[in-house]
Amino acid sequence: MATLVTGGAGFVGLNIVEALLERGDEVVLFDTGKLPRSAERGLERHRARLTIETGSVLDAVRIDAVLRECAIERVIHAAAITSGAQREAREPASVVDVNLHGTINTLEAARRHGVKRFVYVGSGAAYGESLYRYRRLYEETPSVPNTLYSITKHAAERMCVRLRELWNIDVVCVRLGTVIGPWERDTGARDNFGTHSQLARLAVAGKSAILTEREIQRDWVYARDVAQALIAVANSPALRHGVYNVTSGEVWQRSITAWCGTLKDAYPAFSYRVAGVEEEPNIWYTDRDRGLMDIGRLTHDTGFRIGYPMREAYADYLEWMRCTPQFFEVTS
Amino acid sequence: MATLVTGGAGFVGLNIVEALLERGDEVVLFDTGKLPRSAERGLERHRARLTIETGSVLDAVRIDAVLRECAIERVIHAAAITSGAQREAREPASVVDVNLHGTINTLEAARRHGVKRFVYVGSGAAYGESLYRYRRLYEETPSVPNTLYSITKHAAERMCVRLRELWNIDVVCVRLGTVIGPWERDTGARDNFGTHSQLARLAVAGKSAILTEREIQRDWVYARDVAQALIAVANSPALRHGVYNVTSGEVWQRSITAWCGTLKDAYPAFSYRVAGVEEEPNIWYTDRDRGLMDIGRLTHDTGFRIGYPMREAYADYLEWMRCTPQFFEVTS
Repeated sequence: MATLVTGGAGFVGLNIVEALLERGDEVVLFDTGKLPRSAERGLERHRARLTIETGSVLDAVRIDAVLRECAIERVIHAAAITSGAQREAREPASVVDVNLHGTINTLEAARRHGVKRFVYVGSGAAYGESLYRYRRLYEETPSVPNTLYSITKHAAERMCVRLRELWNIDVVCVRLGTVIGPWERDTGARDNFGTHSQLARLAVAGKSAILTEREIQRDWVYARDVAQALIAVANSPALRHGVYNVTSGEVWQRSITAWCGTLKDAYPAFSYRVAGVEEEPNIWYTDRDRGLMDIGRLTHDTGFRIGYPMREAYADYLEWMRCTPQFFEVTS
Repeated sequence: MATLVTGGAGFVGLNIVEALLERGDEVVLFDTGKLPRSAERGLERHRARLTIETGSVLDAVRIDAVLRECAIERVIHAAAITSGAQREAREPASVVDVNLHGTINTLEAARRHGVKRFVYVGSGAAYGESLYRYRRLYEETPSVPNTLYSITKHAAERMCVRLRELWNIDVVCVRLGTVIGPWERDTGARDNFGTHSQLARLAVAGKSAILTEREIQRDWVYARDVAQALIAVANSPALRHGVYNVTSGEVWQRSITAWCGTLKDAYPAFSYRVAGVEEEPNIWYTDRDRGLMDIGRLTHDTGFRIGYPMREAYADYLEWMRCTPQFFEVTS
């Protein structure tokens, strides 16, 4: 019996697929887009346990066929549009389509074919304005969704909770913090490119990063930890709750400076400095400082523990960069 | 220049259309469904200022054409599915379609054709669980959406607020309390039929109402007050806020018993009693008692005042029933 990962070629999805395969599981990867070549090569050795299906969660017939034809035990639904303001202004309906209808289509198919557990990969963005109003966010902290991304991720999560009750199916939702790590790239579905990832590209290219003066306070989380947390949520026998925060659970101290230092050691041609007067930074920063998303519920209920605190995450990310040079050649 | 009312043949929509026509405005009524014959007759005298367009807000081309061809100054977007649990379990996607895509389609057309103000007719249901957690609900009270109706009305409202900012258009949202009054009927879009309306039908038919023992605590609001409030919101020159509660602002005391008494006086064949032991009530009650939705912001910013407190609302509703006997013949 396999685990289906929708959005499995995306940033978070691909980390989940890798982690599932590493532990010996069978995986069906479903995505509209292609894998990076470097990922294809890396997954080659797991080929016997990996099925790749191309398609969109907007195509209800297609996603139903995948669930009918493959023996799917668990679904991790990670397909989404991570929209920025420009896309939201230009095509609001497509954000609603992918993030809400895509979720309904996948959930309906999962129900029809008797899936054991459905994990909805939601976002801390669902808290919306509350991220800036509370120092610490628990799963019961009220949300004030503010962007179309925030609104649709919140609404999709609430729909999962509602349909779990109406359909009596096993659905668990997670809210991801700000994820960094391998495989972040422009797939057409992510508009806000993470700060660490931008810096990694400049470092590999031997260019200069011009930073803002401000350090970001953020409880970043490493993509490989996210994958382990999701696997724990997908497989824990009995979960007491319907929603779990998934992040590192602690603010990474001077995270951007530390990452720049790590990169500089490995890529000496790379340089970084704070923007001078009248100089424009060339690194996009995530928005205002947020409160910390508490992961007490997650660790208590699933036994999950963070494997990669900041320094370990940076070392692993760098190691991955060194082993995956094609990733930067192909997509930069 | 006319006001477009989407969902204008529905319960709340038709009250808005009547009120706009009464004050001498031009109206374009847009709906998938037909007017009740009794409403058609009643609107006959305003025929010169009323245009009826049949169509669905799901049809982006159609709603755009209406806005292009008619000179629309203001839009009151009341088209929605008021879904109950059965519909939510059966066809969740259609609730998302009408309540979210229908709103985006209408808002996009309004923007394209330079509408002066767009009023989104949202619902107090958007507060979700918060209705039962707070004694008094202000527009800033956090929402915890719980049903697909609640989730989609909340999400659509938040989308309006977001797109107002991104598109720089004049959008104001209202959250309606529990509305009673003329024209409530089964249009196919409302699953939870109001308590007062059920009782009115039994009274006209000379039947018996079997009530639950419990009286409902609720800040009901009369449909004709809702219409006036929406017209105030649509026409007030400068509004300080993007969201307004619209309800009576006070709990109607012993409202069901009082309504039964009013009906009994007018329809002597009607009777009512509390269900005995092992007897099933035949009247559907709205759910748990809710907190009161505060209307301080509405009255302050628009000058709107309630015209129909409970007793006046009942007298007017009864008068309307007497003058509109066909309504009950045709649709009961």
